[in-house]
Amino acid sequence: MLRVDKRKVDEKREVKITRDYTVYAEGSVLIEVGATKVICTASVVDKVPPFLKNQGKGWITAEYSMLPRATQDRNQRESAKGKLSGRTMEIQRLIGRALRACLDLEKLGERTITIDCDVIQADGGTRTASITGGYIALEMAIRRLIEQGALSENPLISNVAAVSVGIVKGQELLDLSYVEDFEAEVDMNIVMNEKGEFIEIQGTGEESTYTRAQLDTLLKLAEKGIAELIEIQKREIKECFEGC
Amino acid sequence: MLRVDKRKVDEKREVKITRDYTVYAEGSVLIEVGATKVICTASVVDKVPPFLKNQGKGWITAEYSMLPRATQDRNQRESAKGKLSGRTMEIQRLIGRALRACLDLEKLGERTITIDCDVIQADGGTRTASITGGYIALEMAIRRLIEQGALSENPLISNVAAVSVGIVKGQELLDLSYVEDFEAEVDMNIVMNEKGEFIEIQGTGEESTYTRAQLDTLLKLAEKGIAELIEIQKREIKECFEGC
Amino acid sequence: MLRVDKRKVDEKREVKITRDYTVYAEGSVLIEVGATKVICTASVVDKVPPFLKNQGKGWITAEYSMLPRATQDRNQRESAKGKLSGRTMEIQRLIGRALRACLDLEKLGERTITIDCDVIQADGGTRTASITGGYIALEMAIRRLIEQGALSENPLISNVAAVSVGIVKGQELLDLSYVEDFEAEVDMNIVMNEKGEFIEIQGTGEESTYTRAQLDTLLKLAEKGIAELIEIQKREIKECFEGC
Amino acid sequence: MLRVDKRKVDEKREVKITRDYTVYAEGSVLIEVGATKVICTASVVDKVPPFLKNQGKGWITAEYSMLPRATQDRNQRESAKGKLSGRTMEIQRLIGRALRACLDLEKLGERTITIDCDVIQADGGTRTASITGGYIALEMAIRRLIEQGALSENPLISNVAAVSVGIVKGQELLDLSYVEDFEAEVDMNIVMNEKGEFIEIQGTGEESTYTRAQLDTLLKLAEKGIAELIEIQKREIKECFEGC
Amino acid sequence: MLRVDKRKVDEKREVKITRDYTVYAEGSVLIEVGATKVICTASVVDKVPPFLKNQGKGWITAEYSMLPRATQDRNQRESAKGKLSGRTMEIQRLIGRALRACLDLEKLGERTITIDCDVIQADGGTRTASITGGYIALEMAIRRLIEQGALSENPLISNVAAVSVGIVKGQELLDLSYVEDFEAEVDMNIVMNEKGEFIEIQGTGEESTYTRAQLDTLLKLAEKGIAELIEIQKREIKECFEGC
Amino acid sequence: MLRVDKRKVDEKREVKITRDYTVYAEGSVLIEVGATKVICTASVVDKVPPFLKNQGKGWITAEYSMLPRATQDRNQRESAKGKLSGRTMEIQRLIGRALRACLDLEKLGERTITIDCDVIQADGGTRTASITGGYIALEMAIRRLIEQGALSENPLISNVAAVSVGIVKGQELLDLSYVEDFEAEVDMNIVMNEKGEFIEIQGTGEESTYTRAQLDTLLKLAEKGIAELIEIQKREIKECFEGC
Repeated sequence: MLRVDKRKVDEKREVKITRDYTVYAEGSVLIEVGATKVICTASVVDKVPPFLKNQGKGWITAEYSMLPRATQDRNQRESAKGKLSGRTMEIQRLIGRALRACLDLEKLGERTITIDCDVIQADGGTRTASITGGYIALEMAIRRLIEQGALSENPLISNVAAVSVGIVKGQELLDLSYVEDFEAEVDMNIVMNEKGEFIEIQGTGEESTYTRAQLDTLLKLAEKGIAELIEIQKREIKECFEGC
Repeated sequence: MLRVDKRKVDEKREVKITRDYTVYAEGSVLIEVGATKVICTASVVDKVPPFLKNQGKGWITAEYSMLPRATQDRNQRESAKGKLSGRTMEIQRLIGRALRACLDLEKLGERTITIDCDVIQADGGTRTASITGGYIALEMAIRRLIEQGALSENPLISNVAAVSVGIVKGQELLDLSYVEDFEAEVDMNIVMNEKGEFIEIQGTGEESTYTRAQLDTLLKLAEKGIAELIEIQKREIKECFEGC
Repeated sequence: MLRVDKRKVDEKREVKITRDYTVYAEGSVLIEVGATKVICTASVVDKVPPFLKNQGKGWITAEYSMLPRATQDRNQRESAKGKLSGRTMEIQRLIGRALRACLDLEKLGERTITIDCDVIQADGGTRTASITGGYIALEMAIRRLIEQGALSENPLISNVAAVSVGIVKGQELLDLSYVEDFEAEVDMNIVMNEKGEFIEIQGTGEESTYTRAQLDTLLKLAEKGIAELIEIQKREIKECFEGC
Repeated sequence: MLRVDKRKVDEKREVKITRDYTVYAEGSVLIEVGATKVICTASVVDKVPPFLKNQGKGWITAEYSMLPRATQDRNQRESAKGKLSGRTMEIQRLIGRALRACLDLEKLGERTITIDCDVIQADGGTRTASITGGYIALEMAIRRLIEQGALSENPLISNVAAVSVGIVKGQELLDLSYVEDFEAEVDMNIVMNEKGEFIEIQGTGEESTYTRAQLDTLLKLAEKGIAELIEIQKREIKECFEGC
Repeated sequence: MLRVDKRKVDEKREVKITRDYTVYAEGSVLIEVGATKVICTASVVDKVPPFLKNQGKGWITAEYSMLPRATQDRNQRESAKGKLSGRTMEIQRLIGRALRACLDLEKLGERTITIDCDVIQADGGTRTASITGGYIALEMAIRRLIEQGALSENPLISNVAAVSVGIVKGQELLDLSYVEDFEAEVDMNIVMNEKGEFIEIQGTGEESTYTRAQLDTLLKLAEKGIAELIEIQKREIKECFEGC
Repeated sequence: MLRVDKRKVDEKREVKITRDYTVYAEGSVLIEVGATKVICTASVVDKVPPFLKNQGKGWITAEYSMLPRATQDRNQRESAKGKLSGRTMEIQRLIGRALRACLDLEKLGERTITIDCDVIQADGGTRTASITGGYIALEMAIRRLIEQGALSENPLISNVAAVSVGIVKGQELLDLSYVEDFEAEVDMNIVMNEKGEFIEIQGTGEESTYTRAQLDTLLKLAEKGIAELIEIQKREIKECFEGC
């Protein structure tokens, strides 16, 4: 099987990071994964949600949205519909959980960092791009808090990145584009840290199923992809804080 | 480590099924998994959602809700809040995907079956109990459609059941109760069919991570639990349609 | 005229009470009135709504809901619609007023008891069953507050129960089932206490009217039915707190 | 006991009707009952709600609202809150039921008449004034449909009017003003037709109760008040269609 | 061109003010501009919105609504729709800005005055009538605060009034009625103070455009109309506080 | 007075246009006006809103939104709040009216073009940048419809652009940045076409006023700015359809 864009089965799409894409946010990037483009910003405020009040602990939360014409056909805005779809809520919760796993919330102190992931153009893998890019925005914000003396200790534990894998016409593939995702029998999103540990596995066989052997192949592809993404994250942070 | 209720690490809670728990639904059960109690009903209507119109295909959808005092403390009703929480939407979507995998939607014809899962009492594992019980309600409804001659061919492909597994204080456990779930470092919901294939894996290390070896142990526990649950499903259906 | 279920005109349906139907609530029953089934739970919290702050007075409030398949055809959930119907709000307000009449809110102290009435199966008379069952759940909760020493004085004044009466094809009937209610020219819900005093009368001639003589007959039927219901309430409470 | 405005216990407040208060509606009045002022308009459209489609039958529905400063203190608009309160829905449903009882919906044909009741100033009895005034607007609209030849047969069966009665400091009173209503142990709204038959009785002892003897006294007061109101309705309609 | 109601191009409609139209509000008028009728009430509370807390400054805000049958055809209530339309929000914001320009918010002290503008009958120019009438209600409320000693210094700076102007079939006109507004190529709302200064200009050529020369003519018409309206305002206030 | 960025009083900020910023929309640009950045996309569908059905006429509508961190401090998403603010609705209506004035809706045929304006970074003038950029996206979409043969006749009448002007510390200024806008006594948004005619004037003296002489100065500044903007629009379109 030949992939539309000639990629090998274990080859992820090209990733491009534009740092400080917007000027006001404490950290921000435009992440491009192939034709998928997401603006990720990290916003810091010195308070926490009610359920964490007076515990000396911080919080990371995420919001996700698509511009109405990020897709082939225009979608109605959720602000116009007056409510968030189940898909949006599920993605926001995933991104939040993933990014909370990369740091020690106690060391963050009583502050909340909100990661906004706004999809400008969608060609598959928007939620995993949001996690991978969101991590960079988050680390930028945290490093600046440290530089400013607002944080005395670095709360970061490990890089976190995410990738999709799936089975298309019986073939396991790394990093599905939209057309691949549309045709996939199985679609799986994997979030891992730099030690190769899992933070999240979400694998769905929509109107289909997969065997234990297929699962093993998919996990191996994800490990490879995520290792490459974490390398990119580290290079970007290095250039930003040492090189620039 | 001793579990609160003395269960072994690979021992699921006792499951009790009350068939035809309500009289109006085409299929209905009360499923009790330990202290967790869920009413699952299957309601059939002869129309499909707009996106499936005129395709000769059916649809399975699910709704999930908790009575306000299903839990230790009373929760506000989502009808009073005026919107569904992200958690509810995520669970509904999961149940729907899981149950769509158990049958051939083409053979179902242009009808929709709604599986309502209403949690009367919650002690962990409400979403997996909803899938396991929802499958029985669904099969009851479909068998009755066949008995009435409304369906000429059986659209069912395979039983589907679900169970939670997790890691508590470093120990992998099958079928977490609420106190175990609350303490768990890793929480995973697995949906499988009777052939031992995966339909869905959702594994989250909330503020934690897990290794590949731990994942393998968890998957093995889930396989055991789901095989036992499917045996119970088959026995119940047999008693209902042959014995009663 | 013969009633479908062979009952005499002044005969109420069989009533069955399952006490402590759920384990977490301070008081709970499943009340069955013929085929109508309602779970009533009483939940106690140590605060009051804003309009009662700092008055040393308590509050009783009620919420009412139907499972989507409690009825012949499936109804859309109000949580999915995003708002409560007028019918639901009217019933909730009625149950709340009825149960506030059974006790001295000053003696209750600054606490709120919420009575949740969730209809599992509906065959007419769900709002009156909610009041009759809700009273038992409420008394259970209050007696336990007294047992625990949280209340020094018993705030209960009198039992409260409710029943529907109506005119079907010119005949006054006690305790209408759904088919009778559907055909009724006049539908009346009566709430009374154990002294035979009225707490609420709601009598509607939907597209019809009724004379003073008919009203008198209906009130007499209601008195009989409510006296019988209060006897059942007293027996259940006695068994629970003396016998069990 | 002397009433604040010197009325006798069985004396209703002065009623003033301004016909055709607004120019666009098919029928409209400003009804003033003491200091209570309600604009009632009847709007006719040639279609019916979905549940009545193709049955050759019409429908009467009502909406009720208060201007924010109709009361002593300003209330938030329900349009700003984004939802109707339970009180508003209950009143709308009452007005609709009451006015549907005054005519033969089959003879009305496939049209809907909406009665809008907007309270300009509230001094107790706004829902009963809405029914009494709403009837006049409705009859005006129907007579004009007949004059225009749109209706061949008069669907009206009987005048309908409403009044409140209640018990204040143990004394039964006709037509409560706001201060009386506020102090009332028992508050009852009665809707009757010109034959002296009941259409609706709603009697609530909020945190109180009432005996059968008290009920009889209240019903007698209501009969007297409603007979007087129907006389006023008839005079107004006569002046409008014969005198003007 | 002859205007439907025979007015000259620079002639505004007759204006009628009924002061203290409702009894509870601190200030209230019914303003009639031709067939357009708006009830304007001013309600005073001793607190300010959160963004003004502890600044020793007051606030003026406005709400606008139409009765459903204020217009030729009945409109759905915004309370029933569950949200305010864009048109309503735009008008409310305009009225609020216009009336805030007539006084010194510092001298008002920490209180909020809400101007409610409820359109009883709409024949064009409802938003400008709301401003003109709202000013009178506001001045009445403020003068009474001064009389009661609640305000030591008069915060009012200048009268404020508003009028619409427009171009219909190429002719510039003052104070458009509904039929004129409907046909207008250009529709402009002007708010001015008694010194002839502008507070707001909103001029829209819906599917049309206008030249600089036309703009100048429109502004001159508006100046004339507003001067006349301010004279009426001053006379009403004088009669109210000196004559009555 | 020196402007923060050293501009002369009649000097607009630098404008940068990135054409086809997203790949799916029929027309799209990123417009940058100083630090203000807005993505404008034009989406074409072959149907019209209900009020235009079967009239052979098209429609242009606009939606406007800000990314939560487009501003100095993070704003809550309107999708999370569940409703659009008054400000957003007002801006959307303005952009829609402005762009409908640039073309003949009859010649557009039964299709709707939606202009989405998503603010990535906000430094004042976001609504005027949306109109100026939205026009380019709209013309790109229309020219492509013509190229594809979907439109036989060009419906475009004239370029349309917009700019803000205002009075800051008594000085009239062209194209206010955020800090200037924040300090402005008067804020005015002007929309004009290439013939120098007005489409919209919105001039507000928030808690302030302005004289006729000041208005004249402001209008002159706007004319200059808009002429320059239209020149840029023409150059971009030329490069796109002739040069590229």
